[in-house]
Amino acid sequence: MTHEHIIAQLTKPGDFRVAATDGKARQGYLMTAHGLVRTPVFMPVGTVGSVKSIDPRDLHEMEAQIILGNTYHLYLRPGDDVVARRGGLHAFNGWDGPILTDSGGFQVFSLSGLRKITDEGVEFRSHIDGSKHFFTPEKAISIQQNLGSDIMMCFDECAAYGATREYTEKALKLTTDWAKRCREFHEPGKNGQILFGITQGGFFQDLRERSIEELTALPFEGFSLGGLSVGEPKDKMLEILRASAPLLPADKPRYLMGVGTPLDILDGIEAGIDMFDCVLPSRNARNGTLFTSMGKVNIKRAEFKEDDSPLDPNCDCYTCRTFSKAYLRHLYTAKELLSYRLNTIHNLAYFLRLTKDARQAIREGRFASFKAGVEAVYGPNV
Amino acid sequence: MTHEHIIAQLTKPGDFRVAATDGKARQGYLMTAHGLVRTPVFMPVGTVGSVKSIDPRDLHEMEAQIILGNTYHLYLRPGDDVVARRGGLHAFNGWDGPILTDSGGFQVFSLSGLRKITDEGVEFRSHIDGSKHFFTPEKAISIQQNLGSDIMMCFDECAAYGATREYTEKALKLTTDWAKRCREFHEPGKNGQILFGITQGGFFQDLRERSIEELTALPFEGFSLGGLSVGEPKDKMLEILRASAPLLPADKPRYLMGVGTPLDILDGIEAGIDMFDCVLPSRNARNGTLFTSMGKVNIKRAEFKEDDSPLDPNCDCYTCRTFSKAYLRHLYTAKELLSYRLNTIHNLAYFLRLTKDARQAIREGRFASFKAGVEAVYGPNV
Repeated sequence: MTHEHIIAQLTKPGDFRVAATDGKARQGYLMTAHGLVRTPVFMPVGTVGSVKSIDPRDLHEMEAQIILGNTYHLYLRPGDDVVARRGGLHAFNGWDGPILTDSGGFQVFSLSGLRKITDEGVEFRSHIDGSKHFFTPEKAISIQQNLGSDIMMCFDECAAYGATREYTEKALKLTTDWAKRCREFHEPGKNGQILFGITQGGFFQDLRERSIEELTALPFEGFSLGGLSVGEPKDKMLEILRASAPLLPADKPRYLMGVGTPLDILDGIEAGIDMFDCVLPSRNARNGTLFTSMGKVNIKRAEFKEDDSPLDPNCDCYTCRTFSKAYLRHLYTAKELLSYRLNTIHNLAYFLRLTKDARQAIREGRFASFKAGVEAVYGPNV
Repeated sequence: MTHEHIIAQLTKPGDFRVAATDGKARQGYLMTAHGLVRTPVFMPVGTVGSVKSIDPRDLHEMEAQIILGNTYHLYLRPGDDVVARRGGLHAFNGWDGPILTDSGGFQVFSLSGLRKITDEGVEFRSHIDGSKHFFTPEKAISIQQNLGSDIMMCFDECAAYGATREYTEKALKLTTDWAKRCREFHEPGKNGQILFGITQGGFFQDLRERSIEELTALPFEGFSLGGLSVGEPKDKMLEILRASAPLLPADKPRYLMGVGTPLDILDGIEAGIDMFDCVLPSRNARNGTLFTSMGKVNIKRAEFKEDDSPLDPNCDCYTCRTFSKAYLRHLYTAKELLSYRLNTIHNLAYFLRLTKDARQAIREGRFASFKAGVEAVYGPNV
């Protein structure tokens, strides 16, 4: 069956097919209310309703397929009710492609100074003005319904790296209970919004397996690995990733949340992951660290002062087509606002091309050599 | 003679023709090495080599014809020698239209903490690192030759508002002497770069006239009024403008430097000015103050929180075509980088359309009523 035929079978949001495999790596297609997503996919992060410094035209030009919005941030500002009255996040921010919203669980964990967790939910303080708020699983879904995202995530409790087995187990149980409540609160397929379960279990492989078992017993349209890239050593992350990803259902999209570097993404794809998001490319862009086909480049280095070559001769992004390293270095050094924009355009284009190239490599059965080629440039993933 | 025929006669940089007049207002055409400029024209300011937060594609989309670069800033960073080795400012920053560079005289006056003025030139300290530098008229031209701008400005000495008649007269004399040295240093038409004289004279009309008399005796390709908008009351500025602009040669472009608001620009056009530049639209954009066909809008106002209408229904810029006031307010409130970009795109588009509409009004002999229409929205220019 051709890929076109496979895509033609995807008629409703949540429909997903793996169209090619190469080892554990998969190339698939996921239908959403705002269109098709080709996987593996990298999703640029638009925390507060914009992917920082760039606009929807830029996103289309770099072939972004789906972007993220943050439930926690948008709930606090401008307020999910305000977004709902605008017609949802798509109408509000002008991005007409698919949007995934996280559940707020991770931000409540990582951004809010004070948390009080009960079986009912989490009380937390706003990182903006210190005001008190209370999230329940139902509230997290209700906010995401207001935002009108294509893919919603269950409200979860993330255990920190270094958490005890006892706490990790407790967080796991809460995550499962809350996932059930999320699923009950949001009827499958309602308003075209699909819902993914988040698996936890910290850094105890048996707890990871228990969480996956409990979550995948519920009828979600996709599943993620949560609670990784929270400060643990790289080998620990890779160990959990490699052991857990294959346990997620083969016929549903698999999402590795908040990860990561180009090599992390390739390791994820190799382990059978379909979806990725990370602030790394956009945040690093603003700090002058750029990802290229020749490796990482620190654009502020003096050696680029008179370098008229493009940042990456193998990149067709607007930045590389138009400007030299000398100009990019000048903008960065002079703290010009255009620096953030041009660097972000390039870094996101790099991550999007990396996953696009990975899709082609999987289709052509040469993912291992593709990955080895990137590793030859970026070194081993340590 | 049709406008097309007039334009066809402009064969070399510096060629200028007034094609239509309406009262003292003029609609003309100026040829430069990088193409034609339709006047009256507003020139967006790209101080450090970029128009803050936007890129050359944005500038083309908003129909910018010519942009500014700052000699003082680019000399300090990245260095005019560095820019020269890149092939000049056009090759460096990716803008392929005309560029005007100021002479550095005003920045040395307004940005440098310490100045020591002699007949030879000005010693000053860098606002970046406090290092000492010395500008002579020849140095200012040499820097602009390195930058490769289409229009260079003479090095001048600007008298502050409130300066004594004695000091203003001294500054006037220096400005004339330095203008002669600039003209001698840059042979007319060399490398396609044309050179404008800057007239001074502070707030003494007889000194203004003396400066104009002395400067216009020299063979410059255009003339400016300098030293206005330096803190004086509006009526003082308008008085000098109205009395001085008509004294500048009718067959050369007339440039009012660093001015101003939409009403200032219309007053300038009415007095016979052809060219304008100001940081006002871009700087105000970054502060959330936006210029529209209905007047000034402070985008942070609470009333816009749920306002789904575009910022300006009569504006066809990317911002107004794509986003609502509610979204622009949200971006501004959340200090998102995209806010600077979208606001800047709109404000510059407003100033560029204002001058485009003024050109049409002059051609159609209805400039006075066009100006009255804008004044009805923005109030009298006080």
